[in-house]
Amino acid sequence: MTASQPPRIVIIGGGFGGLSAAQRLRRAPAQITLIDRQNHHLFQPLLYQVATAALNPSDIASPIRRTLRHQKNVEVLLGEVTAIDLEVKQVLLADESIPFDFLIVATGATHSYFGHDEWAPFAPGLKTIDDALEIRRRVLFAFEAAERELDPARRHAWLTFVIVGAGPTGVELAGALSEIAHHALARDFRHIDPTQARVILLEGSPRVLPVYVESLSEKAREQLVAMEVEVRTGQMVTAIDADGVSVGTERIEARTVLWAAGVAASPLARTLGAGVPLDRAGRVRVNPDLTIPGRDDVYVVGDLASLDQDGKPIPGVAPAAMQEAVHAAKNIERTLRGQGRLPFRYHDKGSLATIGRAAAVADLGRIKLSGLVAWLAWLFIHILFLIGFRNRFVVLFEWAWSYLTYDRGARLITGPPARRPVAEPEDREPGVIAGKSEEPGRK
Amino acid sequence: MTASQPPRIVIIGGGFGGLSAAQRLRRAPAQITLIDRQNHHLFQPLLYQVATAALNPSDIASPIRRTLRHQKNVEVLLGEVTAIDLEVKQVLLADESIPFDFLIVATGATHSYFGHDEWAPFAPGLKTIDDALEIRRRVLFAFEAAERELDPARRHAWLTFVIVGAGPTGVELAGALSEIAHHALARDFRHIDPTQARVILLEGSPRVLPVYVESLSEKAREQLVAMEVEVRTGQMVTAIDADGVSVGTERIEARTVLWAAGVAASPLARTLGAGVPLDRAGRVRVNPDLTIPGRDDVYVVGDLASLDQDGKPIPGVAPAAMQEAVHAAKNIERTLRGQGRLPFRYHDKGSLATIGRAAAVADLGRIKLSGLVAWLAWLFIHILFLIGFRNRFVVLFEWAWSYLTYDRGARLITGPPARRPVAEPEDREPGVIAGKSEEPGRK
Repeated sequence: MTASQPPRIVIIGGGFGGLSAAQRLRRAPAQITLIDRQNHHLFQPLLYQVATAALNPSDIASPIRRTLRHQKNVEVLLGEVTAIDLEVKQVLLADESIPFDFLIVATGATHSYFGHDEWAPFAPGLKTIDDALEIRRRVLFAFEAAERELDPARRHAWLTFVIVGAGPTGVELAGALSEIAHHALARDFRHIDPTQARVILLEGSPRVLPVYVESLSEKAREQLVAMEVEVRTGQMVTAIDADGVSVGTERIEARTVLWAAGVAASPLARTLGAGVPLDRAGRVRVNPDLTIPGRDDVYVVGDLASLDQDGKPIPGVAPAAMQEAVHAAKNIERTLRGQGRLPFRYHDKGSLATIGRAAAVADLGRIKLSGLVAWLAWLFIHILFLIGFRNRFVVLFEWAWSYLTYDRGARLITGPPARRPVAEPEDREPGVIAGKSEEPGRK
Repeated sequence: MTASQPPRIVIIGGGFGGLSAAQRLRRAPAQITLIDRQNHHLFQPLLYQVATAALNPSDIASPIRRTLRHQKNVEVLLGEVTAIDLEVKQVLLADESIPFDFLIVATGATHSYFGHDEWAPFAPGLKTIDDALEIRRRVLFAFEAAERELDPARRHAWLTFVIVGAGPTGVELAGALSEIAHHALARDFRHIDPTQARVILLEGSPRVLPVYVESLSEKAREQLVAMEVEVRTGQMVTAIDADGVSVGTERIEARTVLWAAGVAASPLARTLGAGVPLDRAGRVRVNPDLTIPGRDDVYVVGDLASLDQDGKPIPGVAPAAMQEAVHAAKNIERTLRGQGRLPFRYHDKGSLATIGRAAAVADLGRIKLSGLVAWLAWLFIHILFLIGFRNRFVVLFEWAWSYLTYDRGARLITGPPARRPVAEPEDREPGVIAGKSEEPGRK
């Protein structure tokens, strides 16, 4: 890097935050490097649909490289950042280090098992395509195993599905599993009746969707119960193993347990060094302008950033990540033009959670919706989002298209679904983001 | 099983053969059990399109259980048959044995590395969805690694793709890889030019598509060369490792090697016991009525069966497997009615192999086609096939559909893509089906 070269902006993470930042910087006189350990951007709000076999991975994921193909000031690198060295202004990969003049860290969050990492193999979480395919495999296999099982108790355990955590992802998974059992698979077996499957949704706090207003939590519970999901709130999981779950002194025999309860910040935050304050969940406490304390060239955005607004934390949702990313990019552009940085302001446009067919809840500020109308709003917004994001509908013409244009719709590296090692193996208390059992209120 | 129960027909394998047999028996007064180790039937002729990221797994695979949902005399079991016990008339699974009155074995073929099983990890073959996803992962990752590689020689090795075997699958893979490099990825990278990728197709025999007539082999070669594939015939591979391929004394540095050269019969055939003759490739020499010697209740069909007709072996192609399966089912029906069994007669409707966009060869008896017209024939026939097989076009409406009907389009258990152990670890000479470098001439 010589002084005459354009400033080098490195973005870590190709999720909603990282991608938004890169796109916002499309006219910046800079050399941008976006690094992600996956080759694809993921439309995470629909990931549960891949886990429950409604959608294909490529329907909700798109190669980052293709999305940024025409943006000539960006290069995309497939690689895992292991540390950030603020002293020498470099990000470190396994076999390479990349210098930066400005840095945007947008690596998001991962699962947290509340200090019980030994539960991970028995209760996979849902953050990546591989996670989704692993959950799909387990759920479908459970019905196959039940069909072959002669012992009634063991068969029952195969047909019992426990979801831990009743945030939006837990609620979606519970609803979708119930639909699979009651509709998709209902007539496919000879020895079992899939409609006899039990779907149990466990939540530690007193109500489902705990970050929603109470009336919508109640609506969500009603809709779940109508779909024959057993909703149990105020229940703390004390053990998970290959055969089931313990809730206090009660034992639930279940061969399939899914984890939708804990979120912890990406461990990369800790490599920023002692000068950078983290909150209990491991998130970086950023300045109002989204820089980190003591640095005007390093930004943290999205689920990894911790910032209060009007006395309340900004939620870890996709719209917040995108707004923060665009704001950080603007502040870098201002700095390049010699202008001062501006503080960030989050605009909450509302929250939506879907439960199943024609079942959802929506909190649009003064307007609270539930049932069919909330579900239609959810469907509309998500189809709209997916269109923006190049996919969906395009999928409809994918085969014909790939013949006419040579384009490849399914260019995803999904890798082996072996469980990724859990993020927090140290003695430090695992950082659970309070009030955020997982990414709440996406829209 | 008491005597009053309907006769029990067990079918092993849910490929073209096994599924056709089950469907043909839909009106048989019998209790049918179809066993497969995958939960899905695979439209194998399009598997290379999954490997090359044009199609999603669920576009070419369909749950066997769903396909047979309405056929009440069939049950589907997910499981791997480890042996067949002809004495007691049972098939053995890991934890279960299933009695039969009639048996149809349709377990097909697997890869063969010509006695070099140590090549398997470096040169994956293409038989299953997992194989296809593994190949896709390697191919896409190679371009990503090349983008990050600074050393020119190593970068070159990442951009060199070797396909061993120029039967239909090898030809298809070579053509598709060339298209990916020259079109799909052409503009997506900053440091490499994907169009500089080398695609090398190696074939031991003197020409590509060796089971086709010579004029079509020549046409295929011309079309491959026009697509910038390096076609090398009469070249024997002597070594494969992580860094490349040795061909005689020549060394080709290539980080991606794909295996499309050897086919060996399913090892299940050997568990039939000493009384059942196998050919050199491990296939079962069946009687003209498709039963095995000495038994009137056990049939072998598809790639696992070895039978000559007019002095030539019946080829290991999907149409032959389906015709044999239907014939075996008819012979069982005749036996149940007290009629004698009839000999099988294969009707060859021709062979088609595709190379790339608007490039293919077709041998329809007296009519030989190549180029665009052959490709259109290929496209037409495959779309027709996929429609019959419930998929494709339906895929177009899959998302909307899954919302309206609760159906799940992507219900596939694909499991971990870790390499399955190669089938022939014994000292026995690995059975390579002569003249059948892999499934030739599908249509």
